[in-house]
Amino acid sequence: MQTLQSYVLGSWQTGTGGARTLVNPTTGEAIAEAHDSGLDFAAVVRHGREVGGAALRALTFGERGKLLKALSGALHEHREELIDIAVANGGNTRGDAKFDIDGATGTLAAYAHFAKSLPDTPFLLDGDGTQLGRTARFWGQHVRVPRRGVAVHINAFNFPAWGLFEKAACAWLAGVPVIEKPGTPTALLAYRMGQIVVDSGLVPAGAFQLVCGGVGDLLDHLGPQDVVAFTGSAATAARIRANENLVRHNVRLNLEADSINAAILAPDVEAECESYGLFLGNVATDMTQKAGQKCTAVRRILVPADRVDEVKADLVAELARFPQGDPATKGVRCGPVTDERQLADVRGGIERLLEHADVACGGPEPVGDTGCFVQPTLLVARDPRNGAFHDAEVFGPVATILPYSGKVEDAIELTNLGGGGLVCSVYSNDGAWAREFVLGCAPWHGRIWIGSDRMAEQALAPGMVLPASIHGGPGRAGGGEELGALRGLELYLQRTALQGFKGLIEAQFPAPATEEATG
Amino acid sequence: MQTLQSYVLGSWQTGTGGARTLVNPTTGEAIAEAHDSGLDFAAVVRHGREVGGAALRALTFGERGKLLKALSGALHEHREELIDIAVANGGNTRGDAKFDIDGATGTLAAYAHFAKSLPDTPFLLDGDGTQLGRTARFWGQHVRVPRRGVAVHINAFNFPAWGLFEKAACAWLAGVPVIEKPGTPTALLAYRMGQIVVDSGLVPAGAFQLVCGGVGDLLDHLGPQDVVAFTGSAATAARIRANENLVRHNVRLNLEADSINAAILAPDVEAECESYGLFLGNVATDMTQKAGQKCTAVRRILVPADRVDEVKADLVAELARFPQGDPATKGVRCGPVTDERQLADVRGGIERLLEHADVACGGPEPVGDTGCFVQPTLLVARDPRNGAFHDAEVFGPVATILPYSGKVEDAIELTNLGGGGLVCSVYSNDGAWAREFVLGCAPWHGRIWIGSDRMAEQALAPGMVLPASIHGGPGRAGGGEELGALRGLELYLQRTALQGFKGLIEAQFPAPATEEATG
Repeated sequence: MQTLQSYVLGSWQTGTGGARTLVNPTTGEAIAEAHDSGLDFAAVVRHGREVGGAALRALTFGERGKLLKALSGALHEHREELIDIAVANGGNTRGDAKFDIDGATGTLAAYAHFAKSLPDTPFLLDGDGTQLGRTARFWGQHVRVPRRGVAVHINAFNFPAWGLFEKAACAWLAGVPVIEKPGTPTALLAYRMGQIVVDSGLVPAGAFQLVCGGVGDLLDHLGPQDVVAFTGSAATAARIRANENLVRHNVRLNLEADSINAAILAPDVEAECESYGLFLGNVATDMTQKAGQKCTAVRRILVPADRVDEVKADLVAELARFPQGDPATKGVRCGPVTDERQLADVRGGIERLLEHADVACGGPEPVGDTGCFVQPTLLVARDPRNGAFHDAEVFGPVATILPYSGKVEDAIELTNLGGGGLVCSVYSNDGAWAREFVLGCAPWHGRIWIGSDRMAEQALAPGMVLPASIHGGPGRAGGGEELGALRGLELYLQRTALQGFKGLIEAQFPAPATEEATG
Repeated sequence: MQTLQSYVLGSWQTGTGGARTLVNPTTGEAIAEAHDSGLDFAAVVRHGREVGGAALRALTFGERGKLLKALSGALHEHREELIDIAVANGGNTRGDAKFDIDGATGTLAAYAHFAKSLPDTPFLLDGDGTQLGRTARFWGQHVRVPRRGVAVHINAFNFPAWGLFEKAACAWLAGVPVIEKPGTPTALLAYRMGQIVVDSGLVPAGAFQLVCGGVGDLLDHLGPQDVVAFTGSAATAARIRANENLVRHNVRLNLEADSINAAILAPDVEAECESYGLFLGNVATDMTQKAGQKCTAVRRILVPADRVDEVKADLVAELARFPQGDPATKGVRCGPVTDERQLADVRGGIERLLEHADVACGGPEPVGDTGCFVQPTLLVARDPRNGAFHDAEVFGPVATILPYSGKVEDAIELTNLGGGGLVCSVYSNDGAWAREFVLGCAPWHGRIWIGSDRMAEQALAPGMVLPASIHGGPGRAGGGEELGALRGLELYLQRTALQGFKGLIEAQFPAPATEEATG
């Protein structure tokens, strides 16, 4: 059985603490173990800041972009091996595994592309300069510069590949070294990708450290220039937010937590519309892809009350096209959840929902004798306003139909009961209806995906996080913001207002010859 | 003796709890009292959200801008009366009072001006749209919309006028109602200005509430759409950041805390330079204006070691031009600190600094028999790296000369020992030196002010917070960001990525006819 190591202080080290076993959730077989620390986290943080930060800042934005591009290629060369690991340790179908792994290499490549618009300067201009005094002689200009700290990334178990590299891509391009902590149950993939990163020699010494196992007292060593970005449960997010050391030093935080995402079928989308087919396909994909373990997956399906029977039948039929089983088997489109703990959580969650809902298909019963399987489960709410559907995320292949009046104001009210989400998807060919929905739901959402006939053939699914659009959401979703093209660098940069003689500022902090730097 | 009331739920109410006395710090005379709460804060929050938020969002950005302009005028009409209150309750000289009061009306007017660039839409576009799919048919566009909550503003005692209205201007223009809590010792000015706001009838019902006295359990009623912006001590900031309810709901926070600001004299600035005179004048102003009780005031003065005797003598001479006394007396340019507690803090702070520094002028000894006076005190550090100078803000008319080598890297190191600041000011006519300093210090500062001969005649002092430049700083300074023209609205807006058919998005969320909306 493999033992995961951590890559810190320039070498691979094995933790000395208690071991945690990583399993194949399809078979229950133990395949690796990770040891809790024994690492000197004070030294790890110092190494990142002093060695890694200096090395990254010595590169231009363009050079850092090239690094991302090369790394994307180096990882892609190992694609087949990485897929096999994701199938074994993550319970991923090959499709699930590609979604994660290609998401990682694709996001690295996207940031390499975004980097091309950045100047070869150690700062970015933020907006235009502006007159501050009674003449333009006293001038103001905002700039952004890399923070002089480390970025600690605490990643979720569901996307060991994408989760690590979408965060690292932004930090590295900004010029900030990373300390990556994968979610332990599925850490084998991140570990192998970490080996590829190290072996590639592409990332400067100190700019990439990987901690497999517990983070021990890592957070207690962070200071004002450091960043913590976390993806995971709301409970852990709250613990991080209240951490005494992080509070004392105003360490910058970005949190992505629970999100009870909604898909909304507007009343104008009839069965014959292309966007109706899109709606069915996207909902079924969200419920089964990664066995529903996606932070962006649909949990609530708002359907006009007079359409519920029709939609229920169509979704049950659609779900039949996503057979469940051993994810290594061709044709299987839904694997197990990640481990026994997740399985117990999901089954318990379904049981709680069932107190207020009826089963359309699936249910909490065990599937088979081995593995962490729970059936794709579609429910129909009895009272769509019941808090059971809006207050707790069941992180598995489960969603509930919530009947609503078909009025946009009711769709808005129900959707926003989620208390803040990463994404909602609305299906309508009625632009005015869509606009009103967007204006009502935008305060509570980081992203709104609008499905319509005209884009049905070309749309990427709402469950997919694209590097050009921000990812994050207010309230329950954690209040964070990642990606969004160059917006994703903001977390790692300090914005500073410069004030002084216009001639001096424009000479020393000139605008790039071509276009605006921080668009 | 006047009793301060709170304006909540559409009427003026007197607190029912214990009373706190407001004094004239020049004479020690009690002039007003404020009672702790007995207010129904759950209802106050609901009133703001439901009544005030809806009313503000019913106005366009342009209409909200006109409201700010009219309010600026309404307050300005009472300028003389307001100055008298600031002199009596704040220990302000007339100059200090104008700095605060004109700062308030000026910031309101500035945001009225910024509003002119905003479209008459209920959203702002954020950046350009972008192709997301394999053709432009699948399109992305970021928008910003007002949060559907209240903004709780907990203001510091040193700027009862400006502190309230610089925050309110941004919230109102964004479309978010405010609950303002002035610092109690000097709340009489905010109270009177609140009366003018209410009597003006300009601000919609529910969009302005004022809490004089303690905030009780106000923070426990906030939720995911609300905002807390705080200015004050690092200790209180840490308590707010760790507040259990705010953590649980990911309430958005903006904190401005301690800042041990530095002024840096570069070696090229000789005595005959215009910028040397500017340096002396600005440092002396910062030490005496508001009796040094400014979050932006200089606390550390970095001087090339071979110039220390010269600068010390010149600064002592400059300070003599700022006589201390009853701030109501013509010619007096430095009043008392705010109250007995501040006086004790400042004297204690000077005594601690004196363990590691020598007196150039002033000292911790009492001044006179009545009032909260402490002398403008200039010190010279024995060891400029001693933590005493970098770790604790002494919030009064006190600053310390720190000798340094004259090398830019030493200036950077010493400046950054402050652990994160709101502003530093550097005086140099050497553009390359200034650039290197800026790049080294920007990660630790929200603003860098560069003094040079060419702008000496036209520059506004570094201690002045201008609405067009961001105000805030990392680390010890709280990690917040306010103002900065339209950047100041970001705290009160939710950024949301829209994804969908390009034609639909562009039709329903069109770019303004003229120019970019969120520059």
